[in-house]
Amino acid sequence: MDDIKKDLFSSIRDIQDFPIEGILFKDITTLLQDASFFSKTINLWADEIQKSFPQANKLVALESRGFIFASALALKLNYGLVLIRKKGKLPYKTHQISYGLEYGKDTFEIHTDALNKEDHALIIDDVLATGGSAGAAIKLLEKFESSIEGLSFLMKIEALKGEQLLKPYQVHSFF
Amino acid sequence: MDDIKKDLFSSIRDIQDFPIEGILFKDITTLLQDASFFSKTINLWADEIQKSFPQANKLVALESRGFIFASALALKLNYGLVLIRKKGKLPYKTHQISYGLEYGKDTFEIHTDALNKEDHALIIDDVLATGGSAGAAIKLLEKFESSIEGLSFLMKIEALKGEQLLKPYQVHSFF
Repeated sequence: MDDIKKDLFSSIRDIQDFPIEGILFKDITTLLQDASFFSKTINLWADEIQKSFPQANKLVALESRGFIFASALALKLNYGLVLIRKKGKLPYKTHQISYGLEYGKDTFEIHTDALNKEDHALIIDDVLATGGSAGAAIKLLEKFESSIEGLSFLMKIEALKGEQLLKPYQVHSFF
Repeated sequence: MDDIKKDLFSSIRDIQDFPIEGILFKDITTLLQDASFFSKTINLWADEIQKSFPQANKLVALESRGFIFASALALKLNYGLVLIRKKGKLPYKTHQISYGLEYGKDTFEIHTDALNKEDHALIIDDVLATGGSAGAAIKLLEKFESSIEGLSFLMKIEALKGEQLLKPYQVHSFF
């Protein structure tokens, strides 16, 4: 990690035992609150996305923290933004998938008209942990004829080896 | 509404009877998916925020759809971004408030260190309906010493008169 990234990363706060005992939670609100940290992160991350996924033209955001980063990245990159939401939140016809996550279980949905066959989709989220939610997102995207370019995260927790679950898709992490 | 705004507004899809019968839901995913509609909306909205709330330096986003717009606006305006989340999602010490909404009940939280007395906060959300959630957000911000500049929405549902509940704060709506 270079010095600029170390500085940006230092703005993320560690919270011990949230949401349950034994989890070290990465609190990104302290990064977001600082205009300079936030814009530097988005601008540098967007550069890396262009280099790593030159074909991508749609960002697919995972609810809720993924929304925050994907939206700003979509504006910066001038890409379209697609939402994957928790069950019951999307109003139109959806594809659904259930998945287990680090601490619990959930269902994701995506609108059936969210992507078309010309689209090149890149999944965006804040943290790659076990890969449970990201893997579910991939399975949702596989229901479309569009191309799946890969996944890009703000950070990944190496020890949990989430990347294994996402093979053969390309995984990028900003931190 | 001018021609550009009419064009942008036409990209929002109406869904009848969601999430419950009798509600006409404004589906913003069709606006977000189109890179050009999305970036034009954010750029024009950001201009209006600068004119209507010249003092603002922090955008306060309401979970979850507010996150999408506030994040892109914060990047465009180079402001900090503060999150108001549903109960149990924020990992650090929080202020809490319960409120009734158009269809149900909920609790909002904000980190106790989210704003300081030098901050000028502007609340961002997608739709102003009855004003229940926006009014709760105002009450949360009143717990801080920071200045509250007002509220800015993508659109408002005039018939529900949510603006009444938010007096004396300045309310802006893009559409």
